[in-house]
Amino acid sequence: MTTAKRDTYTPETLLSVAVQVFNERGYDGTSMEHLSKAAGISKSSIYHHVSGKEELLRRAVSRALDGLFAILEEEHARVGRSVDRLEHVVRRMVEVLIGELPYVTLLLRVRGNTATERWALERRRDFDHRVAELLKAAAADGDVRGDIEVRLATRLVFGMINSIVEWYRPDPRGAGDREVADAVVQLVFAGLKQS
Amino acid sequence: MTTAKRDTYTPETLLSVAVQVFNERGYDGTSMEHLSKAAGISKSSIYHHVSGKEELLRRAVSRALDGLFAILEEEHARVGRSVDRLEHVVRRMVEVLIGELPYVTLLLRVRGNTATERWALERRRDFDHRVAELLKAAAADGDVRGDIEVRLATRLVFGMINSIVEWYRPDPRGAGDREVADAVVQLVFAGLKQS
Repeated sequence: MTTAKRDTYTPETLLSVAVQVFNERGYDGTSMEHLSKAAGISKSSIYHHVSGKEELLRRAVSRALDGLFAILEEEHARVGRSVDRLEHVVRRMVEVLIGELPYVTLLLRVRGNTATERWALERRRDFDHRVAELLKAAAADGDVRGDIEVRLATRLVFGMINSIVEWYRPDPRGAGDREVADAVVQLVFAGLKQS
Repeated sequence: MTTAKRDTYTPETLLSVAVQVFNERGYDGTSMEHLSKAAGISKSSIYHHVSGKEELLRRAVSRALDGLFAILEEEHARVGRSVDRLEHVVRRMVEVLIGELPYVTLLLRVRGNTATERWALERRRDFDHRVAELLKAAAADGDVRGDIEVRLATRLVFGMINSIVEWYRPDPRGAGDREVADAVVQLVFAGLKQS
């Protein structure tokens, strides 16, 4: 059985187990022993796939970051008025966050104790900066209000979006990613007040 | 010197040191030894003030919760149209969060492993529920949009507000609590779009 189980492991499935353990115990609090137990394979089998837990962290946060950066390459994020591009990016951020929930959760919890964590924080800052630039351009066009400082507005909008990882759980009876994305876009751009 | 320092300790100053340590190391990761070192007094001196770290946690999160619940007793939270009461509560939540930053930060990180943590989570849910009821009443009045489910809207608004603990640091050159509160109220009620 052990052999059979070991044979079915791929870097992909190992990554999904590792992300779950990192999110439960924290990256710092996770040892190779914990990963080995959770995956049901020996440590040496894990080392057959990866150099250690930091490589697993790098692969996991890369998956989240690649998903986020890919949004900026989409046509609706590149072409058109800045405000419409911004709206597209906000909607897609929610969708990527929900689609890659454990990976984005891990990314948002990264603290900066290792080189990989610092690299991930740097990439997050790049992404935030790209979105802030879009907001700035939309304000310059006169399409979004200019009375809230761009950095503050960006932080608050990211705060709303990122908070989704704290409570969103896939549930056929609950809100789907589409409903959450619609709600975020409506709140961010038009607010709660009945117009 | 040690005696002099010990004499100056009050339950209040001890609490402020404990909250800082809890926020840095996590409540679970904090021992009486850590608290003793950070406060620069012996463990037995700490026990002279409190029964243990759980009492410190309870006092700390009580301070945050009392601050939040006191908002609901303010005149502008009790009298007037629901939408205006809601706006007052949102603004004051930001102010209390910034005014009691380390205490609210700790409250928001509570996980539920001890009786005190479960009690704090329960009180947080009560508070969230009271705000959700206000949102529901404002929607029934036709003053806020009815097309976003109340629970989802409440979660997203709380997400934006609570995210402030992640980046807000008192800084004379940065945004003050008034500027942040204005920005949150504007975003939550009117959104980013230029009207």
